[in-house]
Amino acid sequence: MRVAGDNKPPLHSRLEADCHQLGRLPSGQLLLHRNAALHWFILVPDTGELDLLDLPAAERNALMSDAAMISDFLKSELHYPRVNVGALGLVVPQLHLHVVGRREDDPCWPAPVWGNLDSGAAYNPDTLLQLHAAILGP
Amino acid sequence: MRVAGDNKPPLHSRLEADCHQLGRLPSGQLLLHRNAALHWFILVPDTGELDLLDLPAAERNALMSDAAMISDFLKSELHYPRVNVGALGLVVPQLHLHVVGRREDDPCWPAPVWGNLDSGAAYNPDTLLQLHAAILGP
Repeated sequence: MRVAGDNKPPLHSRLEADCHQLGRLPSGQLLLHRNAALHWFILVPDTGELDLLDLPAAERNALMSDAAMISDFLKSELHYPRVNVGALGLVVPQLHLHVVGRREDDPCWPAPVWGNLDSGAAYNPDTLLQLHAAILGP
Repeated sequence: MRVAGDNKPPLHSRLEADCHQLGRLPSGQLLLHRNAALHWFILVPDTGELDLLDLPAAERNALMSDAAMISDFLKSELHYPRVNVGALGLVVPQLHLHVVGRREDDPCWPAPVWGNLDSGAAYNPDTLLQLHAAILGP
């Protein structure tokens, strides 16, 4: 999926391969990991910086505000009791922020998802459309 | 170490066991993981919330500002090219934010430190004092 009018940095090939591209938030692109074992969102801000904490404060705060919106959605609409958040980026050197719904019966609780989540089911296309509409509007 | 006048929430026993308590930042306590294989700071904000993205925006931004200061220190003074940041908290249910210096020759590059870092050397007490002074002042 290409978002019309999007002239922001191209997505790293690994993110493109691993994720569905849901659309745009104020701070950048919103992705969803293809592994449907749990809801694993990834925010890719419009920046050339590699590390979250190198962003100027205003950009960092805008990104965290978008992440908080996704976290609220995970908790209120998808009923996850906990949300993990992290920016690692040593394998994929494009700044991206993980926002991951976690619950005690998920496949890798209480370990982090990175490196510990086996391949899972894929999303149903209708589910993806519903998620898109619920988060980003019609 | 107890910080005089600190009436904030007590530190979780696991954080107390795993970390040196360096002192206070505006948003809360500053810890340093005892594993000296790499510089692994942990910020514990003064809150009863469990998840970073549940903090009110002002508290979240203040915490991230402190984290950015630590990240700048890791890069400019300790010469780490990259910094990982994450809030997981499924094992230790007290909100804490990891800010970790990473370099290609560290023991678990490019994997995350959580679950992948073997026991390492301990800090020399003088090194701890120097770190304290450099970050928090005399």
